[in-house]
Amino acid sequence: MQIGFIGLGSMGLPMASNLLKAGFQLKVWNRSPARAQELVKLGATLVEHPADTVDPQGVVISMVADDAALRAVVLGEHGIGQRLRDGGIHLSMSTIDPQTTRELAALHAAQAARYVAAPVFGRPDAAAARMLFVLCAGPQAARQAVQPALEAMGQRVFDLGDDAAAANVLKLSGNFMILGIIEAMAEAMSFGERQGVPRERTAEVLTQSLFPAPIFVNYGKQIAAHSYAPARFKLALGLKDADLVLAAARRVALPMPLAQLMQGRLLSAVAKGRGELDWTAAALGASEDGALPGAR
Amino acid sequence: MQIGFIGLGSMGLPMASNLLKAGFQLKVWNRSPARAQELVKLGATLVEHPADTVDPQGVVISMVADDAALRAVVLGEHGIGQRLRDGGIHLSMSTIDPQTTRELAALHAAQAARYVAAPVFGRPDAAAARMLFVLCAGPQAARQAVQPALEAMGQRVFDLGDDAAAANVLKLSGNFMILGIIEAMAEAMSFGERQGVPRERTAEVLTQSLFPAPIFVNYGKQIAAHSYAPARFKLALGLKDADLVLAAARRVALPMPLAQLMQGRLLSAVAKGRGELDWTAAALGASEDGALPGAR
Amino acid sequence: MQIGFIGLGSMGLPMASNLLKAGFQLKVWNRSPARAQELVKLGATLVEHPADTVDPQGVVISMVADDAALRAVVLGEHGIGQRLRDGGIHLSMSTIDPQTTRELAALHAAQAARYVAAPVFGRPDAAAARMLFVLCAGPQAARQAVQPALEAMGQRVFDLGDDAAAANVLKLSGNFMILGIIEAMAEAMSFGERQGVPRERTAEVLTQSLFPAPIFVNYGKQIAAHSYAPARFKLALGLKDADLVLAAARRVALPMPLAQLMQGRLLSAVAKGRGELDWTAAALGASEDGALPGAR
Amino acid sequence: MQIGFIGLGSMGLPMASNLLKAGFQLKVWNRSPARAQELVKLGATLVEHPADTVDPQGVVISMVADDAALRAVVLGEHGIGQRLRDGGIHLSMSTIDPQTTRELAALHAAQAARYVAAPVFGRPDAAAARMLFVLCAGPQAARQAVQPALEAMGQRVFDLGDDAAAANVLKLSGNFMILGIIEAMAEAMSFGERQGVPRERTAEVLTQSLFPAPIFVNYGKQIAAHSYAPARFKLALGLKDADLVLAAARRVALPMPLAQLMQGRLLSAVAKGRGELDWTAAALGASEDGALPGAR
Repeated sequence: MQIGFIGLGSMGLPMASNLLKAGFQLKVWNRSPARAQELVKLGATLVEHPADTVDPQGVVISMVADDAALRAVVLGEHGIGQRLRDGGIHLSMSTIDPQTTRELAALHAAQAARYVAAPVFGRPDAAAARMLFVLCAGPQAARQAVQPALEAMGQRVFDLGDDAAAANVLKLSGNFMILGIIEAMAEAMSFGERQGVPRERTAEVLTQSLFPAPIFVNYGKQIAAHSYAPARFKLALGLKDADLVLAAARRVALPMPLAQLMQGRLLSAVAKGRGELDWTAAALGASEDGALPGAR
Repeated sequence: MQIGFIGLGSMGLPMASNLLKAGFQLKVWNRSPARAQELVKLGATLVEHPADTVDPQGVVISMVADDAALRAVVLGEHGIGQRLRDGGIHLSMSTIDPQTTRELAALHAAQAARYVAAPVFGRPDAAAARMLFVLCAGPQAARQAVQPALEAMGQRVFDLGDDAAAANVLKLSGNFMILGIIEAMAEAMSFGERQGVPRERTAEVLTQSLFPAPIFVNYGKQIAAHSYAPARFKLALGLKDADLVLAAARRVALPMPLAQLMQGRLLSAVAKGRGELDWTAAALGASEDGALPGAR
Repeated sequence: MQIGFIGLGSMGLPMASNLLKAGFQLKVWNRSPARAQELVKLGATLVEHPADTVDPQGVVISMVADDAALRAVVLGEHGIGQRLRDGGIHLSMSTIDPQTTRELAALHAAQAARYVAAPVFGRPDAAAARMLFVLCAGPQAARQAVQPALEAMGQRVFDLGDDAAAANVLKLSGNFMILGIIEAMAEAMSFGERQGVPRERTAEVLTQSLFPAPIFVNYGKQIAAHSYAPARFKLALGLKDADLVLAAARRVALPMPLAQLMQGRLLSAVAKGRGELDWTAAALGASEDGALPGAR
Repeated sequence: MQIGFIGLGSMGLPMASNLLKAGFQLKVWNRSPARAQELVKLGATLVEHPADTVDPQGVVISMVADDAALRAVVLGEHGIGQRLRDGGIHLSMSTIDPQTTRELAALHAAQAARYVAAPVFGRPDAAAARMLFVLCAGPQAARQAVQPALEAMGQRVFDLGDDAAAANVLKLSGNFMILGIIEAMAEAMSFGERQGVPRERTAEVLTQSLFPAPIFVNYGKQIAAHSYAPARFKLALGLKDADLVLAAARRVALPMPLAQLMQGRLLSAVAKGRGELDWTAAALGASEDGALPGAR
């Protein structure tokens, strides 16, 4: 099966690679074409414009950095927006604003094309290992059509119904919860540290008792050690997600004080020059407020 | 082995029962002696005063509601404070202020007795099932001496070193983190609900992907359904713990904004008459702020 | 002197009226032309399009609801953007995002026209009484040219230098501070109320001692009585301003927790259907959190 | 008229001095007797113990640092508690917990003595200039009896009725509001600074327009210049007041998020070694969160 694939960043590249390994044929496009070399060796075709990836009635996957990048590849010159039509499917896997999904879905629908949102949980190493969790929503027939492709990229596909935006909402919910947990761990470890309990001990005991999930174990180690480089997920991207959460919450008039707290932590971190660190570096805020030592 | 056991509340009763089943002999005391009947049938001896449970050089366990109750059974008339001496061990398992631990440890030390703090993670059903996690700290020899008793009550004993207060600090850290997670789940579910994603779906997807720990699964179901009665852990007790966290943080000059947020949520819930509900009812705050429906 | 005037809302109408009374000749435009009748009686000329108010090298004043409305009258069809040129001055008095000011100033500059920002402090009654405080910034010669017009509308004109955006920044700062004071008064009155001190007493004593400024006296009375209708400044507009503050702060990576708190209060109020009340109704949040009675 | 006066700190000393100048005869006591020298020259009698200041049926004024100090002079050995009786009046002017007032009032009542609470607004310079605002509450006849003394110390006495605690509640409300205003000014000035508006300009424009009260002018100058030494009111004392506010709010189950924010700011400042600075130094928090320069 022939698929278009747009966006070969740290996530897109391993995802496309897994599609190729699963037998899909790919036409790929990336802003920096050099990133495609590895895939070309695996059999992908590198094309010049986003629109060139599109078989008008086929499937095109996008996995780009943010809403602006997605708009550019859909709506820009040589974008996929005009070219995809009559049953074609845009499988949009980026983490974006649910509102953008609604707008683009309407735009594609005007061409009789379909929009499926399928953002993922997992970082580049999980993408490479085909361990992503995929949150999939959109018109039912289209969801079913892309199922094999999604299964080639992730360990599990959650079927979230016909409203494509629901997948984006859930993706943002998950990232928000991680941010909340970063703060909870940061305050708990500072609380212990200040009273003679080493940060590592707090992390170990809590993850071996109440909180045995991998996210606590892995993030807990980083936060305990104040070890934030190299970034597995950049703090500046975490701030982007906090922004999206608060923008969506603002639209529906929902106060989210914990999301605000985390946006503040991330903003402060960016102001202090930490945008390129891992987003767990938001934990430095709790330490600095208490005049505790930070990075060691 | 003969042990004293003070405090037969919803936690103390199953814990004492497990000790009896493991072959320990108990002298028990409770403010309401009627609570002891079940244990007496199992072979325990009911005594009239806290001090009567004490073999001066033996071990006495306390599991009471709060700092005030603990002070009463130690320092009050017929308390254990004067009676325990010369190597005797007070194994204090209540969730209390680390400062109280420091004070009582000093007081016992003045009689050449020893104080071991061993608060637990787990609710009454976990206590009954011997599934508690025990956080144990205090003088080394005393810790070792009480190890068999602790193992009879829990699934795992964490050894946290010589400073008894460290166990209380970690216990408070854990309860604080649960509160933070309640808020994170509450905001995430309200965020979804407001945008067309059912609360149950948010709970399911997130617990089956990013957050597979039991606490997310169990608490997530309650919060999704706004099902807060009967209480497994009363909200008023959760507020007590939030108070203890903030009091300890205040003493060491550590700001904890997430702990403050949660104290505010719990205070508001108490003001609204929800102190007897489960502490997950703190999640109603996020719903009410957004004018979303609460209990159904 | 001939001036264009765009926007005859609750603020623009009395401001334009004062200009006419001071001897200025006005060409006026409003989305709903009926609003202009009163001014026409005073000698103003009603025109069909925003651009028709413009003498290309003259002065045109805009006083509209928000950034979108301003963009429409400048950039829209028959907007003033193309028509104003060669020394013409756009005197922009709306409360808008500093970023919009920067964009529009650059756009006008491309036509050799000039942009002066002059937002005001004061509500419609102050506008009618010529009691507005005017915050004026922009190119020096242009600032001087509009000085007589500004003096016809306000009690005092603050000269804030060449960077037009500075005036918008200060305007937002002022509105933010009012929001902060609303919260401070709301919490203080609830604090008293809960302990037997009537809300009115708290308001009276504090405004007659520490806080004798009119804003405390006037807002204090409203908040004490929970008297929020009719609105003197609508809560929904206050939320718009809180949004602008946080958007600007976000751009420069500045956390503003008090601004976040107030946005949350206002969002919650909108969710509860209070957008048309006076913005002091944000004070209901503190009362409701404590289960205190609200509107009486 | 003969009066006892206990507590000759930075507030008590000028207050006692004004009483002497107004013709009152004073027996004074202070923990450090050297502080009394100046008053002795003005005719006061220095005594050895708090109780020695008391004419059993007369008036004794206390003006001490905190609740603990007040308890010591009332309940301690040679305290005034036993000695004051049968119509004697304890005029308690310290800033304390309303709960302490309730306890001490009951204790004095058991001796047929009366307790009047009369905390003040104003710093030492205002005390010296007889410019204090006095908040007076307690049994009516006792209030009237102390009126001449209060008028000798302040510019205005607010009569707050029979419940002595009400005066403490209002005093705490006022100090809380000042803290809220410090944060509002801090965020506003940082907001401007970050966007090119000098801090001094923000302070000037806002105090000359919306906020003409002296507290904005004076505090605004300090915060604009980050000029926090020497302290006019120590930050550590401001934290004590924030603690009292939150403790009282906790007792009545009232969430106060702005008070929590300020306690956090003050705690952080203390952790950073700023307890001896002026309490306006809480404003450094907003600057540091945004990586703006602090003290210059």
